[in-house]
This record gives sequence, structure tokens and C-alpha cells, in this order.
Amino acid sequence: MAVPTQDLPARVRIYEVGARDGLQNEKATVPTEVKAEFIRRLADAGLTTIEATSFVHPKWVPQLADAEQLYPQVADLPVALPVLVPNERGLDRALALGARHVAVFASATESFAKANLNRTVDESLAMFEPVVRRAKDAGSAVRGYVSMCFGDPWEGPVPVHQVVRVCKALRDMGCDELSLGDTIGVATPGHVQSLLAGLNEEGVPTSALGVHFHDTYGQALSNTLAALQHGVATVDASAGGLGGCPYAKSATGNLATEDLVWMLQGLGIDTGVDLGRLTATSVWMAGRLGRPSPSRTVKALGTTTQSHQE
Amino acid sequence: MAVPTQDLPARVRIYEVGARDGLQNEKATVPTEVKAEFIRRLADAGLTTIEATSFVHPKWVPQLADAEQLYPQVADLPVALPVLVPNERGLDRALALGARHVAVFASATESFAKANLNRTVDESLAMFEPVVRRAKDAGSAVRGYVSMCFGDPWEGPVPVHQVVRVCKALRDMGCDELSLGDTIGVATPGHVQSLLAGLNEEGVPTSALGVHFHDTYGQALSNTLAALQHGVATVDASAGGLGGCPYAKSATGNLATEDLVWMLQGLGIDTGVDLGRLTATSVWMAGRLGRPSPSRTVKALGTTTQSHQE
Repeated sequence: MAVPTQDLPARVRIYEVGARDGLQNEKATVPTEVKAEFIRRLADAGLTTIEATSFVHPKWVPQLADAEQLYPQVADLPVALPVLVPNERGLDRALALGARHVAVFASATESFAKANLNRTVDESLAMFEPVVRRAKDAGSAVRGYVSMCFGDPWEGPVPVHQVVRVCKALRDMGCDELSLGDTIGVATPGHVQSLLAGLNEEGVPTSALGVHFHDTYGQALSNTLAALQHGVATVDASAGGLGGCPYAKSATGNLATEDLVWMLQGLGIDTGVDLGRLTATSVWMAGRLGRPSPSRTVKALGTTTQSHQE
Repeated sequence: MAVPTQDLPARVRIYEVGARDGLQNEKATVPTEVKAEFIRRLADAGLTTIEATSFVHPKWVPQLADAEQLYPQVADLPVALPVLVPNERGLDRALALGARHVAVFASATESFAKANLNRTVDESLAMFEPVVRRAKDAGSAVRGYVSMCFGDPWEGPVPVHQVVRVCKALRDMGCDELSLGDTIGVATPGHVQSLLAGLNEEGVPTSALGVHFHDTYGQALSNTLAALQHGVATVDASAGGLGGCPYAKSATGNLATEDLVWMLQGLGIDTGVDLGRLTATSVWMAGRLGRPSPSRTVKALGTTTQSHQE
């Protein structure tokens, strides 16, 4: 009964952000051993790209202050384990531990660049330039996150050309992949497709693009469908729907990996993920955090792994 | 920034089911006056089709046992106010009150026909035949609901041809419109489009079809997008996401009208609905019910009506 809609990719790479983006936004600090177990379980569920932690200064993100302790505990897993690096100091820390995949995080808007990085957009791009160059020289793959690609809590709708400018700058620096973030979850499918088309027109190929949607207004999965229909084959998601962003108003709820996998399975799109194992992992993590998962699929499947999906 | 994706309808009629499908599934019985106020507020928010109540025997749905008292309180509203009628007795009650839009409810599967109607599929169709004929003779428009169009908790995936058979039977009886229900929320976009294509092939035009998705696995809005891309222009939704079905396992969460309106506004599709007023209505109703709305848009907008949507 799985009938692909037009021109969908045959395979989607899920870029799992729960262990970083999710746990970063928990009030309670999760023990390092629990984080490591979470990542191991995600890998066991079939996820092949699992963002592990962040080398932001512990003062800003105390929840991930154990990056040096955590990374070596999972480094042997046969999966890609990207880490966030805000600057050269963060890169040094990541490379010293043998990280092979790093990510910088830019903003499409001045307001959020100021709020999140305390810099203008151009100042932040200048900060990233040596990070990207040195990471590439060290043999690392580099992802560039771009926040506020659709709307911004201070500035309202974000023009496509403004996002394209930041994306091109990151590509010119050497970023292998960009992740287009709808940080406050306001995007709708037509806007998604017009941004993707705008990027293509300016020479950024769809193959270099991932999407990162939030479910603040319930739009994450329909926006993902629109991106898949444009050919996007890398989708960010968070196991159990963990996460958000403490510096952005209304930035609740990453797209839940389980809800994404349910749709992709139904569409006959390969992900390599075992939905039962993944759901069990999110139920386990919810137990550690002391609150239920916001993922609708996790709620529906509960602790069982049965489903009637076609 | 609103850029329609391919071939979307210019206008969508939202068929609001919160006052019936939503309140029917509340444990507490809502006072008649509150129901009437809810319907008036929904009309004031711009909804033009508001399912008001059900003339099922009060023994089965005690929450709507006040249909005779409620209907006259809202009958003067300048909107369509469909009511459910399970049989000729229910139709008599509805017509006696002046109802001009009625709906029968069939099942695509034997298991759910038995559970919900205590009849086989064919027996239930035979029961509806005189209801539809007499309703049409009385000048009423008739909608046919079809439950379990995608998956069934007892039978698993439901073959397209099985759904098509029931839909054709209802059309042959004279139903003006059919509502394709994903009662347990398992559908995915490819399956939606293949069912719609299957119906078209057998002579059921898209213009006679509405869709009714549940968010059990978070799929309701992406399935709606797939249906819109097929040309469907009638979408069932429930203000604040109220509702479900007490007789179907895991049948949680109708598509929230607010989440739907957010997407349609972004796509530049006209609905006539004022999202601020609608959200305020759902917040008000949640207060009466004593629990928060499950709609993500209602949660995000809260009691304010501000939004940064483009």
C-alpha cells in the first residue's frame, strides 16, 4: 500500500539531533552515562548520523558541559557522530577527541545572530570561516546550520534572499551540507519549496541541503513532505520529539523521529531505522527524564512495537 | 511569502467537527448552553460548515443526548449545520427540527461495521439507503462518512478496492459528499493519493470527496497536504483538536482546525476563518472542559492572537 508521491527520494538520511538539540534544552542535566546509553541505543535502532554533543562553552550550555567525557564513550560506534563547534576553541576541543564531523551554527537574521551569538550575521560568518577551513584541513566533514530560515520572533517573515546569502557564504567557506532551520516552527509547505527553489537558482544544490523543522504550529511533517517532494533527502529529527531552543520564543518541539519514520515507511522510503527499537529508546529516555515523550507515534505505540501500518 | 505548491485548490471548505465528534468523546457531558455557545463562536470565527450534533440513540452517545434541545438554539446561524443520523428514526428527529444537512456513517471494514453499528457492511448500507433517499426527498444535503479507509485495528491495512466499493454504494444511494476517514490515524501521503486515484478511476470525482484525518501518529496534516495536491478541497477538522473515537483503539486526536488553518494561510489558500478568533474559541472551550487543547497552534498562540506567519 506504500505508494510514493511524485519524485520522492528512494532513501532518506535521518540526522538525529535528540542527544544534542534535545538534551541541551532539558532543565535537568542528564548524567553522562545516560547520554552515552541513549546514543548507543539510537545507533542500535539503525540511525547512522547521531549528533552527539556540543563544544560550546559550558557557561552557555551547562547541560552539555560533559562533552569531553561523553564523546570518548561513544566514539567507537559505527555511525557518524557530529558535534557542534561555535568557534576555533570549540573546534580544537572536538578535533583533540578525534571528531570527524563538526557543525557550525549561523543565523539568517540579525536579531537571532545577536541573541544566540552576540554578533552580527557577518561577524558570525567571519568567526566561522577559520573554523570551517581548519576542520576541512583536518579531514572533517562540516555542516552549517542556518537558524530562522522562515520566520524570526523579532523580525517576522524572513525573505528568501536573506537566507540564500547566508547559505552561499557557508557553502563558499566549504560547508559540505547546510541544515535549513525553521527555529520557531512557522513555515508552511509553499514557503519551504520556494526557499529550496531560491537556493537552487543561486547554485546551492538540493543534495547539499537538509531541513530542520519544529512542530510549534504542527507543521513539521507537512513541511518535510514538501521538502521531500523537492528532492531533499536529509531530514533532521529528534527521537521522541525532544528539544527546542531556550533562546527563541515559542521554539518548541523538534520533529519527532518516530513520526518521521512512520511517514517514510508508509511512503516506501528507506531509512534503515527500526521503529520499534527507536520507540522503545524514546520511552526509555522519557523515563530517565521523568516526563512522557511528545511524539504522537511514541504515545500511540507506547512500549509495544506493534503497528498496523501498511 | 505564500507560494502554493502544485495544483492546490484556491479555496478550502473546512468541515468543522469539534462540536459533534469532539464533544461526543468527552467523558463529562457538556451543558447544552455551552455547546450552543461553542457553535456560535465557531460561526463567528468564520467557519461555514459546523457539524452540530448527532441523532444517534442517547443510550449510545449520552454526551449528545440533548440534540433536540441544542439544535433549535443554533438553527438561526447563517452556516450549514450538519447532524448525524444513523437510521430512519434519527432522520425523523432531525427533519422534525428542520435540519437541512445530514450525515450517515458507514465503515469500510466488516470489523468496524460490527463494532460501531452491530451490522455487516452490507446490512449497514441497506439501513442507510432509505435514510439517504428520504433525506434527499426532503431537500436535505447528505454526507456519507466512511470510517477505516486506510487501516483498521482488527484487520490491518484496508485495500483500496474495499473502500471504493463502499464509497460507490453511498454515491449510488445519493450521497452528495463522502468523507474518507482515517479513523485510527495510520495513513501516509502515498496511500492517501492512491485511494483518491482509485476512487477517481471508479467514477467518484474528487469534488465529491472530503478527508478526515486523525493525528494518532502525527500524520494528519501531511496527509491533508497530499489530499490537497490531489485536488481535494473539503477537509474535516476539529477546533482545538478535540475528539477521537471511543470504539476504536488508538483513535486519538482529530486534526486540529487551527493547525490546518495555519498551513492553509501560509499556502495562500482561502478558508474565511479568523485564526485569532478560532484560537480564542478553543482556549475558551478548553477552559470549560478543564484541560488544555492538544492543538500545537493553540498552544503556541495561547490566548493572544498574534502571529508572525507570513
